[in-house]
Amino acid sequence: MTHLSTNRYGKSRVRVMKVVRRETHHAMKEWNVRVLLHGDFETCFTDGDNSNILPTDTMKNTVYYLARESQAATLEEFATELVEYLLANNPQVTKASVEIEEKNWKQAQIDGAPHATTYQLCGPEVQTTEVIRERDGAVTVTSGIDGLVILKTTNSAFTGYIKDKLTTLPESTDRIFATRATATWDYSPIPSSYEAVRAAALTALMKTFADHNSLSVQHTLYDIGAAMLATVPEMSRVKLTLPNIHCLLVDLNRFGQQNPNQIFVPTDEPSGYIEAVIER
Amino acid sequence: MTHLSTNRYGKSRVRVMKVVRRETHHAMKEWNVRVLLHGDFETCFTDGDNSNILPTDTMKNTVYYLARESQAATLEEFATELVEYLLANNPQVTKASVEIEEKNWKQAQIDGAPHATTYQLCGPEVQTTEVIRERDGAVTVTSGIDGLVILKTTNSAFTGYIKDKLTTLPESTDRIFATRATATWDYSPIPSSYEAVRAAALTALMKTFADHNSLSVQHTLYDIGAAMLATVPEMSRVKLTLPNIHCLLVDLNRFGQQNPNQIFVPTDEPSGYIEAVIER
Amino acid sequence: MTHLSTNRYGKSRVRVMKVVRRETHHAMKEWNVRVLLHGDFETCFTDGDNSNILPTDTMKNTVYYLARESQAATLEEFATELVEYLLANNPQVTKASVEIEEKNWKQAQIDGAPHATTYQLCGPEVQTTEVIRERDGAVTVTSGIDGLVILKTTNSAFTGYIKDKLTTLPESTDRIFATRATATWDYSPIPSSYEAVRAAALTALMKTFADHNSLSVQHTLYDIGAAMLATVPEMSRVKLTLPNIHCLLVDLNRFGQQNPNQIFVPTDEPSGYIEAVIER
Amino acid sequence: MTHLSTNRYGKSRVRVMKVVRRETHHAMKEWNVRVLLHGDFETCFTDGDNSNILPTDTMKNTVYYLARESQAATLEEFATELVEYLLANNPQVTKASVEIEEKNWKQAQIDGAPHATTYQLCGPEVQTTEVIRERDGAVTVTSGIDGLVILKTTNSAFTGYIKDKLTTLPESTDRIFATRATATWDYSPIPSSYEAVRAAALTALMKTFADHNSLSVQHTLYDIGAAMLATVPEMSRVKLTLPNIHCLLVDLNRFGQQNPNQIFVPTDEPSGYIEAVIER
Repeated sequence: MTHLSTNRYGKSRVRVMKVVRRETHHAMKEWNVRVLLHGDFETCFTDGDNSNILPTDTMKNTVYYLARESQAATLEEFATELVEYLLANNPQVTKASVEIEEKNWKQAQIDGAPHATTYQLCGPEVQTTEVIRERDGAVTVTSGIDGLVILKTTNSAFTGYIKDKLTTLPESTDRIFATRATATWDYSPIPSSYEAVRAAALTALMKTFADHNSLSVQHTLYDIGAAMLATVPEMSRVKLTLPNIHCLLVDLNRFGQQNPNQIFVPTDEPSGYIEAVIER
Repeated sequence: MTHLSTNRYGKSRVRVMKVVRRETHHAMKEWNVRVLLHGDFETCFTDGDNSNILPTDTMKNTVYYLARESQAATLEEFATELVEYLLANNPQVTKASVEIEEKNWKQAQIDGAPHATTYQLCGPEVQTTEVIRERDGAVTVTSGIDGLVILKTTNSAFTGYIKDKLTTLPESTDRIFATRATATWDYSPIPSSYEAVRAAALTALMKTFADHNSLSVQHTLYDIGAAMLATVPEMSRVKLTLPNIHCLLVDLNRFGQQNPNQIFVPTDEPSGYIEAVIER
Repeated sequence: MTHLSTNRYGKSRVRVMKVVRRETHHAMKEWNVRVLLHGDFETCFTDGDNSNILPTDTMKNTVYYLARESQAATLEEFATELVEYLLANNPQVTKASVEIEEKNWKQAQIDGAPHATTYQLCGPEVQTTEVIRERDGAVTVTSGIDGLVILKTTNSAFTGYIKDKLTTLPESTDRIFATRATATWDYSPIPSSYEAVRAAALTALMKTFADHNSLSVQHTLYDIGAAMLATVPEMSRVKLTLPNIHCLLVDLNRFGQQNPNQIFVPTDEPSGYIEAVIER
Repeated sequence: MTHLSTNRYGKSRVRVMKVVRRETHHAMKEWNVRVLLHGDFETCFTDGDNSNILPTDTMKNTVYYLARESQAATLEEFATELVEYLLANNPQVTKASVEIEEKNWKQAQIDGAPHATTYQLCGPEVQTTEVIRERDGAVTVTSGIDGLVILKTTNSAFTGYIKDKLTTLPESTDRIFATRATATWDYSPIPSSYEAVRAAALTALMKTFADHNSLSVQHTLYDIGAAMLATVPEMSRVKLTLPNIHCLLVDLNRFGQQNPNQIFVPTDEPSGYIEAVIER
């Protein structure tokens, strides 16, 4: 005998762009939304009974509809509205979650000032959020950033590690530290301005990364997390993933050259993987 | 005050290809390995003390070294060997996990028979495994497949769902059902042949998908899971993710044409997302 | 003074799937179409005069409309129909080209036989065509394949090359030869069956790759091209691009192991690039 | 009888990062290099004779070696040095070309100022160059940019185009204009500062895009090209490719809402394709 265990369903990659035509400029945001529902769906799986199924196509329409109705200025607020709407209108749903990625569009710099109606995509990173609510519980809001590609050319060392018969890595007191950072953080309580808190968190991340005298990726990760928590009182915990994107020092001795930390080969694979949660 | 919570680290995207030169043919496998360790690493994060840190570069070397030593014929066996080696040689490690993806290389068909030393990449799907062991616990082995792209042109309907003011989807009694399937399953007990069990599981998946009179993606997902469990006694549970990759019927009325389920536009986004675990 | 020189415009990535419901099975094809037009468009560029502009949206509709009307069984025939339609209906167009990629869908094997209505995506490669006609000229048809990933574990050597002060590559008499092949070929005259000719061409490609005693990628490329031309009398020339996807022999001496061509690291970058045209 | 026609070979995706440790900051650049050679290689193809073959592995080493020797401050200068080195050291080579992409790293802004040793990847676009020289000819240098993602929310219309029986696109006097711009331009004569000329060219591109009262993509493309030529006297011609990345106005009437150019669905496919060369 088999039975249905945990399950969820929804709609992924619902893209929506909203242009708010203000007097001074057009405020434009591009969001990529995923909606996921938990609830009483067992007979759909076992019997093909769709009477409790909100079509994923309707979830897509809900994103468009609410985008028009909404006054939300941030992805966190819009995700919260979506969660509330889905729970309020669908009694069969016991839990709803909405994830949003926001592309890094910025007003283009023209003649030294941001242009009122022209945007440029700046950076591979996306701003992220995940909002979850169980029907009888409180909303939880996670904010974050994904794909922030940063690099420091000095103040990064890696020494004193375990050596065994398979060790070939030489110690380094001055290596390149490159990463594609992912951070997500939880709020308690919800902040009064998601935008202000996000900006402060990312400033702390960048400043710590830049100034840190790194003894390992772990070492810098921890201090970044601590700095973010110190900066944002509403942040209860932060999860950081800092892959080590290796930039290999080229052996130029073979060609009669020295290489005093000048010529490197950046690589995509393999990469180190460092992940931790820092809490209060 | 902040403190370190959960953390892990390791090496991602370690690619290794092994060629075993048998008498009748060369057996070739290409694996992409991720190693992750949990353990006593707190002072590395907080103080930059690397004395308990096995470098991720050494993990990479361990993959190469063990690939040479190993007689493992399957990704599950090789992942298990890696987990055991890492625990046995690193007392500071409390838990090790290894994930492997195997590319879908098959012997090329030449003159109607598999060629002894020539391979062709067949299909976007990869075979997967994840093996985990806590130092004082038993090994758990998960097998799976990721990215299996399949499609049926009939025997798929979707009717009887909730209609509300945001519904625009018409009911369909004959639609295209396309998906990019991901499946993972756990064993209890460990099977005597991972390869035989995997083949049986995938055969059940494909046959159920092909023959099912689908009333929804959920409906087919459940019957696929049940068929896999019925086929493989060692399988204790299976998790299936079947995104609904929509193929939209084109409105040809605008051009004075009928479209009796002939002309579709396949789309990448948005897509439905259906996920469930089926257990005994 | 500046002026407009060469220009063209059109629609890219028009995806269309056609299901022909035959008695024995459903014949399904998925095409990705690009349409490009040349013609009298100068005032559009210089003055914003769109009176000679067929919207790219209409080109998209034309693909859908013709897909419904067409009896074409191959991508080459459908591309030719599109080119002819666009020229016949748009006097302002002096030259039309259509490129199509066909995904490698095959009927799924269920119970040892191809299933009538279920398909599986097999292989990353796509079948390709490019059809071009100037208004007063003849149609030219190019067929091809893109992204065919193949590998041979022996019968590949590379020795006797130039050595200079920057040489570090050791000679090899037995290396892995992996590539992601692209081939395109022209017809003169047009063959009676594109499908038969394509199958014969690819069989020759695969067989030569498998059996060749390769002294370099160039050496194998040439013999593949010669074999394709020998097999297909209607083929006037073939262009082959065979990147050398390096599989590096791992230095296991460091770990006290020998590595008799068993353990390799496959790499994505850098890669060799070998390209040539072979003609009659 | 078959024979070898045009051919070339080389190395793709050679990545190199150079860090110049200046007093005030570390100047860092990341380049992705492709080298291609033409020459007397026929017997390699036909007979497996490698005596005239410079291994592509050696080309890779040449990139590293020259990166160390070079004082080049721009990708154009470094590509030129590579071309000259390859021709000077390889008499069998009749023509050499080098393409380089430079990633868009910028010094990170920390405390309101560029940090001396920390970089952030800004934008998906890459700076590009292609330098070609035939042994007895002059060097030609092309500069460019690829993947510049920009968008304007107003001042874009598309009306007055051809209507036929397959037309469904409504005219628009105010649509979103989004593109992923590619530009390449040639120099005559070579400018005294590639960097200054590049900056001026891109400023002209951005300003024209932002301020243009666009009647079609073609219309804006032409004026961008004209502005670039007007700004940079050394630019002899510019080729622009401006795909039309469609942002579709959502039909909200179905939900009882109006949509005064506020809610759009950005799409990746299909996309318009507009390409032209503007010359003096």
